[in-house]
Amino acid sequence: MYPRAFEELVEFFRILPGVGTKTAERYAFALLDEEPQRLDDYAKNMIQIQDRIKFCTICNHMCEDEVCDICQSASRDSKILCVVQSSKDVVAMEKTSEYHGKYHVLKGVISASKGIMPADIEIDSLLKRINSEVSEVILATNPTVDGETTALYIGKLLENKGVLVTRLAHGLPMGGHLDYADELTLIKAIEGRKKV
Amino acid sequence: MYPRAFEELVEFFRILPGVGTKTAERYAFALLDEEPQRLDDYAKNMIQIQDRIKFCTICNHMCEDEVCDICQSASRDSKILCVVQSSKDVVAMEKTSEYHGKYHVLKGVISASKGIMPADIEIDSLLKRINSEVSEVILATNPTVDGETTALYIGKLLENKGVLVTRLAHGLPMGGHLDYADELTLIKAIEGRKKV
Repeated sequence: MYPRAFEELVEFFRILPGVGTKTAERYAFALLDEEPQRLDDYAKNMIQIQDRIKFCTICNHMCEDEVCDICQSASRDSKILCVVQSSKDVVAMEKTSEYHGKYHVLKGVISASKGIMPADIEIDSLLKRINSEVSEVILATNPTVDGETTALYIGKLLENKGVLVTRLAHGLPMGGHLDYADELTLIKAIEGRKKV
Repeated sequence: MYPRAFEELVEFFRILPGVGTKTAERYAFALLDEEPQRLDDYAKNMIQIQDRIKFCTICNHMCEDEVCDICQSASRDSKILCVVQSSKDVVAMEKTSEYHGKYHVLKGVISASKGIMPADIEIDSLLKRINSEVSEVILATNPTVDGETTALYIGKLLENKGVLVTRLAHGLPMGGHLDYADELTLIKAIEGRKKV
């Protein structure tokens, strides 16, 4: 019903996660009003994006070179490795400015329901990085069923490797309310309670 | 924190209506996994979109030629004009296969809050189309404050022009429940009740 070019634009937005036809149409209409030069720049970037974005050959974090800035940095502590699911989590951790070690991005988690096996994610490359220099591995996968499974699995593999294996603390989110917390979170908060 | 090219992609998605940083990041990650050839095609279409999409010089409906298919069609009834806010509404009306007249797309509605005046939308071009051939004008702007205002305004302008001016019926949506209908809709449904 719409012109072909417009339908294609709608089709493009439909490939995005959680976007249905109505939303895709709304997005497409918004683009029609966009400044042509800006739209041109964005589209050109989109053509190159998959070539421009590389993944660090050491830690798998998203970067524009062979090795990411964090792995290259001399000021980062090589003794600690933080294992995360995706590059998003590296960005989240970096925003805190609290962590000064290095990362390892798994690019996913083990998932029975999605058929993702240990061999499908970057566990092998993690094991290869564990040497005498590394003293601690922080398992920072998400506190979901799949994230916990993956953490347990990696924890098992790292037993007897002479490294301290830790997991991020679970508990009440800051600014949250006790009565809004789910039971499991509350249990974790009680278990992990600290002396004031 | 992300590579520059990725940040640009996030920035692009941020220009879409209702898309915040989190959603834009999710969209950008999804594109990284997209098939390169497909992504390339979509991006190229995006570059041309504003040149390829034209608006019918008669009714303002979105099209790829100077004049849209509906205005060109000999089988459509030129005696009836349906006035809508946007091309979306033409598509919605066409899906019903119930309407066989022609359209006039206003490209917006009069809105005090958004500062959109009668001169900013396609009312002048509508008035120019009203001639002895046209016998009915259906005002099909949305049943919102701005849509109603615009319908009233156009209705006034068409007084004494010798055309029948109608408005789409308001009432309960089919498949809806009485207790879920808002008061105004229910009032309109009562006012517009029909003999069975």
